[in-house]
Amino acid sequence: MKQVVTFLLIGLCCASVSAKTPKNIIMIVGDGMGPAYTTAYRMFADDPSTPKVESTIFDRMLVGMASTHPHTKTGYVTDSAAGATALSSGVKTYNGAIAVDVQKNSVQTVLEFAKKQGRRTGIAVTSQINHATPAGFSAHNESRHNYDEIANSYFDNRIDGKFVLDVMLGGGWHYFIRDDRNLVKEFKQAGYQYIDDIEKLDEAKTGQPLLGLFGDKGLPWALDSKNNTRLPILAKSAVTQLENDKGYFLLIEASQVDWAGHGNDIASAMAEMHDLALTLKWLEQYVANNPDTLVVLTADHSTGGLTIGANGVYEWLPASTKSLKASPEEIAKQLLPLKQRWTLASELLGFELSQEELQQIIEPTDSKTLFRAICTIIDNRSYTGWTTNGHTGVDVPVFAFGMGAENFIGHSDNTDIAQKVFELLKAK
Amino acid sequence: MKQVVTFLLIGLCCASVSAKTPKNIIMIVGDGMGPAYTTAYRMFADDPSTPKVESTIFDRMLVGMASTHPHTKTGYVTDSAAGATALSSGVKTYNGAIAVDVQKNSVQTVLEFAKKQGRRTGIAVTSQINHATPAGFSAHNESRHNYDEIANSYFDNRIDGKFVLDVMLGGGWHYFIRDDRNLVKEFKQAGYQYIDDIEKLDEAKTGQPLLGLFGDKGLPWALDSKNNTRLPILAKSAVTQLENDKGYFLLIEASQVDWAGHGNDIASAMAEMHDLALTLKWLEQYVANNPDTLVVLTADHSTGGLTIGANGVYEWLPASTKSLKASPEEIAKQLLPLKQRWTLASELLGFELSQEELQQIIEPTDSKTLFRAICTIIDNRSYTGWTTNGHTGVDVPVFAFGMGAENFIGHSDNTDIAQKVFELLKAK
Repeated sequence: MKQVVTFLLIGLCCASVSAKTPKNIIMIVGDGMGPAYTTAYRMFADDPSTPKVESTIFDRMLVGMASTHPHTKTGYVTDSAAGATALSSGVKTYNGAIAVDVQKNSVQTVLEFAKKQGRRTGIAVTSQINHATPAGFSAHNESRHNYDEIANSYFDNRIDGKFVLDVMLGGGWHYFIRDDRNLVKEFKQAGYQYIDDIEKLDEAKTGQPLLGLFGDKGLPWALDSKNNTRLPILAKSAVTQLENDKGYFLLIEASQVDWAGHGNDIASAMAEMHDLALTLKWLEQYVANNPDTLVVLTADHSTGGLTIGANGVYEWLPASTKSLKASPEEIAKQLLPLKQRWTLASELLGFELSQEELQQIIEPTDSKTLFRAICTIIDNRSYTGWTTNGHTGVDVPVFAFGMGAENFIGHSDNTDIAQKVFELLKAK
Repeated sequence: MKQVVTFLLIGLCCASVSAKTPKNIIMIVGDGMGPAYTTAYRMFADDPSTPKVESTIFDRMLVGMASTHPHTKTGYVTDSAAGATALSSGVKTYNGAIAVDVQKNSVQTVLEFAKKQGRRTGIAVTSQINHATPAGFSAHNESRHNYDEIANSYFDNRIDGKFVLDVMLGGGWHYFIRDDRNLVKEFKQAGYQYIDDIEKLDEAKTGQPLLGLFGDKGLPWALDSKNNTRLPILAKSAVTQLENDKGYFLLIEASQVDWAGHGNDIASAMAEMHDLALTLKWLEQYVANNPDTLVVLTADHSTGGLTIGANGVYEWLPASTKSLKASPEEIAKQLLPLKQRWTLASELLGFELSQEELQQIIEPTDSKTLFRAICTIIDNRSYTGWTTNGHTGVDVPVFAFGMGAENFIGHSDNTDIAQKVFELLKAK
């Protein structure tokens, strides 16, 4: 026992691992999901009719925390590209880099290594599938902004003669159906099935590679999606498609936690967290039935400088963050053409606006300002704080369950997580 | 192995513990030390001449995170009194409560229980010793603001006929030497040795109870103390005094991390973190030599809504937080009487002020505004963000090492930590 404990407490100082290879490895990135997000979600999900604050699925799975800084050349605060590269390859790089090092040389990712080993590989994300995080596992480029090149590489690149990805689920029509190149058509000609309606995803044939695109760039916000959720559908479909005797590697990303953070939009952030929590709950059951699967979840960084409480008030009131009938962005869009905004605003926000709040949403004449006004009303009601529309450098929580989860206990650097996954893929 | 791992991953759902009783238990509270503080400290302590960001003592000891909310009657954001009560007794209570529950009934603390078992007990803190956190372990009162009553109780209360505390180190002349009552005199008459100069603490006789007070209320800031440190001196002295065959329980608090957070003063916050880090380093060595000792460190909450990066900039530059020759409060005090402030300001801040910055420190005519201007200059140079002068609700990191440390792996509620300590005290 003592030996095991000692190992666990010093486990992350080096890349040695304690378990045999899990058949399936699922890495999940909650993009931008710093510790304030997982904590706020507990309060958001809390049943206020009981004196207890119920614990969440995140609480059950927490094993440690991770540092996220990029290569020091870039400083201490990472972007999603350098964050993804660290988590996928174990290499620190500059902000903007897609699985290339500071010399712009390609670095092998855990997804590519899994593919080389004969595993199936997939990505299931709520951003466009060629966005920084999925790209950081599946492509190599000196800049995350080269979206077309990254999309092309998903078709053009091969690993031992095989396509990099067997399953791709997310958004991206804008990049995959272009005037200069129709990658959807090329994938179909190469034998992929293509689905562009998330409602029809369950009609996908197993055993055939799958491309599913459900948005021009990202998917609609969770708050604007059917049942306010879509990541569990993508995750379940990907797992079903990927299952095979040789195992699989799947990257899942709750991409839009980050986007909500950039917008300082707490209501959307919590809805995206809920979408992720439902995904985890399904995976918890899946791992119970498939104990040879490892799930590791972390964030690439925190976004927005979110704080639970602000302006001297010792309180956080989630009620106004969870009554919305649509995302603040969508509410702003619907309200903008109206001269009389009070009725629809109160209906869509799920609470009655005060005279002062009404004034704030009557004045804006463009959707961006109106969106900002709506978010500010919710911030003021909930006592939510923000310090930036960018990222911050705080350590992020690490969650793991299933085979080999104990290797992630304690403090990790984000590169340690990739190193551990490499070692677990190599172990016997 | 599998069984152990399963235990570790679900270990905190209940209060069962896995180890025999440690002889000595040291609980440490980094008051206000949310995850942004431990992360920022890594960057503060980083050697910028190497490409690697060196890990800290905190990284080596991290085992999980803890939720901090008080009784839901009070909401989701705790103060230090309810936080201390949760950590000391395992009971959620209202903000302001000192080891009493929501009905204002006293609740037993781990320190009191240890005393009942025949252990020696002590507190070593940088606030006044009757401040919320040490009081939450050593006294019972319906309000943290009843400072005199709490101080009196340290003398008046008995556990099985014995004083509650064998060692008390911190500040508090204001409360212990009063016109209406001289508690120092009473303690001396009862056989305590009294020391009021931290430089003479090493002259304390072992085997005799000890009261050491080194400030009117709190101790001077670390930045204004000799060698910019004092908590390791208090901790070392307390441990030396407490050691005995039956073991001891010691509460250490880095009290002023919180005070720096309330002042949105990143330079003082980092100096207080460094003071705590040095304390931990000494304890790491102590535990190596005394493996029957458990050290558990956490925070009661986070303060200030500190963020690493702010205002859209993906960077944090600690240089301006670590060049100070005195605390911003002390610098403001020294600059205030001067008409020509540039030379001394640059000398005490350790960097040359720009014309714009000079303007900011020339204008203030009171020390509070001048203090604020100094902190703002450092925030702007370092890209530090704050959202409040109060507390926030984010989960805090949990660190543990020594005998029984494995029990604290994963997510804990703050009350779980107390429950585990009770169980460890009871175990054989």
